[in-house]
Amino acid sequence: MDCVFCKIIAGQIPCSKVYEDDNVLAFMDINPLAEYHTLVIPKEHFEFLWDCPAELSAAIGSALPKISRAVQKASGSDGCNVLNNNASAAGQAVPHIHFHIIPRFENDGVFTEWPAKQLAPEKAQQAAEKIKTLIDAE
Amino acid sequence: MDCVFCKIIAGQIPCSKVYEDDNVLAFMDINPLAEYHTLVIPKEHFEFLWDCPAELSAAIGSALPKISRAVQKASGSDGCNVLNNNASAAGQAVPHIHFHIIPRFENDGVFTEWPAKQLAPEKAQQAAEKIKTLIDAE
Repeated sequence: MDCVFCKIIAGQIPCSKVYEDDNVLAFMDINPLAEYHTLVIPKEHFEFLWDCPAELSAAIGSALPKISRAVQKASGSDGCNVLNNNASAAGQAVPHIHFHIIPRFENDGVFTEWPAKQLAPEKAQQAAEKIKTLIDAE
Repeated sequence: MDCVFCKIIAGQIPCSKVYEDDNVLAFMDINPLAEYHTLVIPKEHFEFLWDCPAELSAAIGSALPKISRAVQKASGSDGCNVLNNNASAAGQAVPHIHFHIIPRFENDGVFTEWPAKQLAPEKAQQAAEKIKTLIDAE
């Protein structure tokens, strides 16, 4: 498998590891947006979160609070973004599920965009019903 | 509790619901960044992910693949961001843990910033050891 994160998991490429359990590995992002920017990945290879088995995604979820707590303490930051990008359109650079934990400080300028719109209630309801129908159909 | 998401959970404020289980509720963001922008929240109130019990965070993690899969199909998008902002410095607007699922299309201009730096290996190792020590000390 020609996946850089699978090679890190296999020990073929080094990383600065911060956490490991049966299902999850966490290590420093070598192209960080801030000091202590950490990546949390499943040990099993899946490209996108929507392809991830629920049990494995639960294992990632389970590890996120303790890792983000330690990143927060280590960095002394005011907050953090926990961010999982899926597909190149969303900024995914490595095709293996990863959650960024990005320490944030007031007015650090790391992310400034939030181009929110208004959504009419009837449009929201239509969208919700379409999504709900797809979930129920699985 | 004067929390808008707790009021949604209690049925005191309406929402366009897409998913619910014992621990998690998902509904449409009324100030979306894209059509089908969905929020996933724990039913129990915690402000920050680092305060969330591992079991509850696991329940959120467990629900994310099926909800993001349905959001992806409903929107026909090319990808999505799964984003949890903690504290105002990180863009958190409602003080109750929430994961955004934001459908993304190539060149949609929703998020364009990624101000990455280089990290020297010895600095990465020092940061990893500091975080690891904090996790191990819990």
